[in-house]
Amino acid sequence: MSPIFCPGNRAGENFCLDIYGSMIYTRAMKAIILSIGDELILGQTVDTNSAWLSARLVESGIVPEYHQTVPDELVAIVEAFKAASTGADLVIATGGLGPTADDLTRQAMAALAGAKLILHGPSLKKIERFFRKIGRKMPAGNRIQAMIPEGGMVLYNPVGTAPGFCCSVGKAKIMALPGVPKEMKVMFDRHVLPVVKAGNRRRVLTQRLNVFGLGESMVAAKLGKMMARDRNPLVGTTVSGGIVSVRIRGEFEKNKKGIPEMRKTVAEVRRLLGDYIFSEADASFAEVVGELLLARNRTLATAESCTGGMLGSMITEVPGSSRYYLGGWVVYSNQMKTQNISVPGDMIRREGAVSAEVARKMAEGALMKAKADYALAITGIAGPKGGTRKKKVGTVWIALAEKKTAGCAVYAEKFLFPGDRAMIRDRAAKMALNILRLRLMRN
Amino acid sequence: MSPIFCPGNRAGENFCLDIYGSMIYTRAMKAIILSIGDELILGQTVDTNSAWLSARLVESGIVPEYHQTVPDELVAIVEAFKAASTGADLVIATGGLGPTADDLTRQAMAALAGAKLILHGPSLKKIERFFRKIGRKMPAGNRIQAMIPEGGMVLYNPVGTAPGFCCSVGKAKIMALPGVPKEMKVMFDRHVLPVVKAGNRRRVLTQRLNVFGLGESMVAAKLGKMMARDRNPLVGTTVSGGIVSVRIRGEFEKNKKGIPEMRKTVAEVRRLLGDYIFSEADASFAEVVGELLLARNRTLATAESCTGGMLGSMITEVPGSSRYYLGGWVVYSNQMKTQNISVPGDMIRREGAVSAEVARKMAEGALMKAKADYALAITGIAGPKGGTRKKKVGTVWIALAEKKTAGCAVYAEKFLFPGDRAMIRDRAAKMALNILRLRLMRN
Repeated sequence: MSPIFCPGNRAGENFCLDIYGSMIYTRAMKAIILSIGDELILGQTVDTNSAWLSARLVESGIVPEYHQTVPDELVAIVEAFKAASTGADLVIATGGLGPTADDLTRQAMAALAGAKLILHGPSLKKIERFFRKIGRKMPAGNRIQAMIPEGGMVLYNPVGTAPGFCCSVGKAKIMALPGVPKEMKVMFDRHVLPVVKAGNRRRVLTQRLNVFGLGESMVAAKLGKMMARDRNPLVGTTVSGGIVSVRIRGEFEKNKKGIPEMRKTVAEVRRLLGDYIFSEADASFAEVVGELLLARNRTLATAESCTGGMLGSMITEVPGSSRYYLGGWVVYSNQMKTQNISVPGDMIRREGAVSAEVARKMAEGALMKAKADYALAITGIAGPKGGTRKKKVGTVWIALAEKKTAGCAVYAEKFLFPGDRAMIRDRAAKMALNILRLRLMRN
Repeated sequence: MSPIFCPGNRAGENFCLDIYGSMIYTRAMKAIILSIGDELILGQTVDTNSAWLSARLVESGIVPEYHQTVPDELVAIVEAFKAASTGADLVIATGGLGPTADDLTRQAMAALAGAKLILHGPSLKKIERFFRKIGRKMPAGNRIQAMIPEGGMVLYNPVGTAPGFCCSVGKAKIMALPGVPKEMKVMFDRHVLPVVKAGNRRRVLTQRLNVFGLGESMVAAKLGKMMARDRNPLVGTTVSGGIVSVRIRGEFEKNKKGIPEMRKTVAEVRRLLGDYIFSEADASFAEVVGELLLARNRTLATAESCTGGMLGSMITEVPGSSRYYLGGWVVYSNQMKTQNISVPGDMIRREGAVSAEVARKMAEGALMKAKADYALAITGIAGPKGGTRKKKVGTVWIALAEKKTAGCAVYAEKFLFPGDRAMIRDRAAKMALNILRLRLMRN
């Protein structure tokens, strides 16, 4: 399980008290988030950066004043910078740092500050090195990525070629980061978080518990008064990809001990939701299941039909998954089911490929063929076509086979998942992992 | 391949001329999009409404000036309304129309207009009827949902309880819609679109070409002066998941024919980027490859090591992929490679699991076992561990086996993908599909 995010540790500081979350002292800093890009203004891309940045700022006790999104136009960016820098101490801008002619964040900053763009030698060397490494000559256009407004500070980019920059306008700091989420996130942690931390005053503790198998309103019903808006720690829920995250957030004066209160709230949420909680913080299903398998020294194989490899792909997202995952079969055609994992052809004809019998045989076949301790099998109708009145789109059989001293034990369960093809496949793969998780927890 | 989006068809009108994109006549209306809600400002929810609204406006020839997101605070909403109404003809606001104390859009509008809130009888009746229907008494708090600023217009909500409203401030129209996407979308089409359409004057044509195998700056270098910011049609690029999308957008006076100019630009981009372009509009790699296989009546199997099923999962994202995809093997362990798709154990020991030989044998084994026409195999080091000086993290061998009258032909290529585990796996799966695409195009 990944550790709970703790910026104190990460930054090498020493005020993170325990696993219950991050702990930061902040003064009431005013922050504004700007997103720059035609693809956002044209509605071609959904801006996820602003929400991510907001959540990180809120963890540190700062609620942003507003978000604004502007197109790749010099005047629009300058105007947004100007307005934001009069209304905030910290302006976080993302996007517009690419190498092409429509990337204008640097130029806008220079125009606002009345400064010229100057070349930063080490950054240029880094970009040239990158292109050499992949065996190409740096296109001339990339040179602009090594330039920043005079008087500004270069923000090193450890995961991409282009640096960001930081400029002061009046009493505001404008920090410009790349728009690519992966680069933006690393650079936020590296460059922006230390600025946010300077001069802390309040203490914010956060924790997140992830729930699967219950809808958001069912979670809310189970949590009841715990979710009152005037409670501290505050308990809220968000939902994404079928996973309901219960977010707990306590704000305390620096002289008050918040940890015991956080502990109490977390314990109460755990009591109310029980096994529905599968992980904390960012730990995924596959990580949790992987840890359980490792701890018990057990191996896993898979046999997938409608998910087409998604279950195997989820399992192998985890580094080191080769220690417990042997592999699997994508038996999309019936012939693949019969010839590779011994599902009898007449059984498929008699019961249908989406049936308890076939799911069980798939799990059993995978278990035997791979010589694994556990095998998961999924067969279902992901749609949009292929449903019948008896077997609707969304019908999925999931089976779990477990090696026993003699032979194996097989458990199978039928589900009817709502949503479209992508959602049905995603939920089926997660549900298979959940079935294994619950089984492993009892072993 | 999915058809190019054509709003003319969607609206039941008849001015979409050909596959080169949407085509609408609009006057140069200035529009601003506001999102209202603490959940957005706190980063608990990603704002998808703004992108959706933008895309719909752009289809109608209007590029929004900016998006802004503000919290559920009276002053912040009033300020945002004030600024937007001085900078635009049309302000579309979403959110803040719920029944609870933190829903303040109505009050903010009233405060800005210096008007009081008045009750709209029919709306109140509708809300009361809703609660009667679900067997509950209307909570007193819901009464506010039937109130709108005096002088404003009620916008009927056909899919929810709360109406929206429209108020004029100076020469700007402020139209307030619910934040729930489902209600917002229906109400946009019903109330906002007619306003947008009134008095159209310009024509906007759009097209998107998707590129794989070239970085964004290389694409820009190849496109050269085509990307000049003052060009019409305008050519821009965005990148996501290793795919560079070239976006072409032409704006024309109503009396000028834009289609030939769009055609010319699209043809020129196609000439400059050639086979690197793998699809148009929203068509994914898997869809393109699926269409090519279907057209040639060929079948496909897969053998995956480091991607762990991701390639199969991508292929089966496409509805109807069972017509050409037979299935595959996730041969994560060496034993799985040897026992299932006949990769000799001594070859793995001699050459290593990540080698040309093993990739070729994997593809060949999958082809033979599945009796497929083509088989793709992937074996690599996805990291973060497992790299050596000779075989760095990111090293991936991809092989393509093709059935011949006698036996098969196998092609293999080595790649060094940058990035983290997730990126290496994603690029490897896409590259495998790209290799097959290029092969199929030549057959």
